[in-house]
Amino acid sequence: MKFKIAILGTGNVAWHLAPALEEAGHTVTEIYGRDIMEAEKLTGRLYTAEAKSDLDFSDSEAEVFILAVSDQVISELADEIILPEESILVHTSGSVPLDILGYSSASYTGIFYPLQTFSKDRKVDFGDVPFLLESEDQAALQKLKKLAKSLSPHQYLIKSRDRMALHVAAVFASNFSNHMLRLSEEIMARQGLDFEMLKPLIIETISKSLELGAKRAQTGPARRVDLNTLDTHFQFLNYNEQIAEIYKLISQDIIDSY
Amino acid sequence: MKFKIAILGTGNVAWHLAPALEEAGHTVTEIYGRDIMEAEKLTGRLYTAEAKSDLDFSDSEAEVFILAVSDQVISELADEIILPEESILVHTSGSVPLDILGYSSASYTGIFYPLQTFSKDRKVDFGDVPFLLESEDQAALQKLKKLAKSLSPHQYLIKSRDRMALHVAAVFASNFSNHMLRLSEEIMARQGLDFEMLKPLIIETISKSLELGAKRAQTGPARRVDLNTLDTHFQFLNYNEQIAEIYKLISQDIIDSY
Repeated sequence: MKFKIAILGTGNVAWHLAPALEEAGHTVTEIYGRDIMEAEKLTGRLYTAEAKSDLDFSDSEAEVFILAVSDQVISELADEIILPEESILVHTSGSVPLDILGYSSASYTGIFYPLQTFSKDRKVDFGDVPFLLESEDQAALQKLKKLAKSLSPHQYLIKSRDRMALHVAAVFASNFSNHMLRLSEEIMARQGLDFEMLKPLIIETISKSLELGAKRAQTGPARRVDLNTLDTHFQFLNYNEQIAEIYKLISQDIIDSY
Repeated sequence: MKFKIAILGTGNVAWHLAPALEEAGHTVTEIYGRDIMEAEKLTGRLYTAEAKSDLDFSDSEAEVFILAVSDQVISELADEIILPEESILVHTSGSVPLDILGYSSASYTGIFYPLQTFSKDRKVDFGDVPFLLESEDQAALQKLKKLAKSLSPHQYLIKSRDRMALHVAAVFASNFSNHMLRLSEEIMARQGLDFEMLKPLIIETISKSLELGAKRAQTGPARRVDLNTLDTHFQFLNYNEQIAEIYKLISQDIIDSY
């Protein structure tokens, strides 16, 4: 089943999702960007899509309209967009409930959330991306499932409340673990040490954690309740109060969790 | 160059290092454990090593003595161990300075620190492990280099002060990123959601971070300064004050770092 799809948004998700939809055989009809130049940058990556900076889609041939924009503007765009008959309007956010689309002119609404971290300068393999889907209309939900299935073998039906919890979990698993690497990079750079040295440790840490589970996989001074080392490290970090505080709080949480 | 080596300690490092040394063609002569039963568990994994619970090594055939014990007991063992002539005493710790071995009966002292996370129930491939070496004696240092080289192609000469900084960086990169996965697992479990869903995200996060660097790789609500989502997440986590505080502090640090 091939769809005609309009995408609203020109950020990281739209940037990767639009070409992936074309590769899967669908037609991207329009790209909407508040800034037409941004929309044109993205249509430049596509075959047939037209760039657009107004929200009147009453003449669009698309059936599925994907809001791939910041959480803050989803509701505004949903309220203002003018959609053709029988259209399905979805958003791609981890944290915004489905009912925010309730005042739109769409016949059906839903969630089409690709659970992945997207950056413009790194290609995403959608075959590994889980899609979290939701709709109150069974026929619309079936269509979203087919659409997701054309991109990835992994689909889950998740209600808004669970999707929010999942998004919090994803922030810890992805954004926060990445920030731990960031702080590590900075400590190494400050000392003039090569971050390459730590890469095998990082790869083994994550592989082990995914295999054994993080609780069993944990090692290090907090896990051993090695208070001398924890104190030495805390003193070392006193050049930056906030980082020292992060060190203390996470170490305490590790200690408390065994 | 093959060495005769005695290992003091029966923890995670000793558990993996001793068999790896044998596999590399060296002879492990003795395993010391305060609890002889623990020492015997480890000699059971080895060909010729004898278990031992006293610190008199004056008759040992070993040349290299590896203290693979908790940081807190390194100094005590170093002071008490009786070593033969021309012996090299090293420890495997990331945070303990070299000079702590200064009062021992060893002819030479050094550091032999494998920068990796070790758990008993997961095999370690030493070929990927960087060894951080230090000694004030050039001949001893050359021997430690040869010993490390027989296990891994990655050796670095690192002074105690830098090694401590590196250990702090390793705690962030390994123990703390693992703890972020732990918190993520717990949020998923509490909500009855399958952690499997997050695994592709975690793998992509780390791969991307190692490729682009963590600063460029970052995404998520804190990166976008999406205060609504940050607040919703913080409210969601109010069932556990400490986790909510971790969420707040790390998010703030991400915001501050761009």
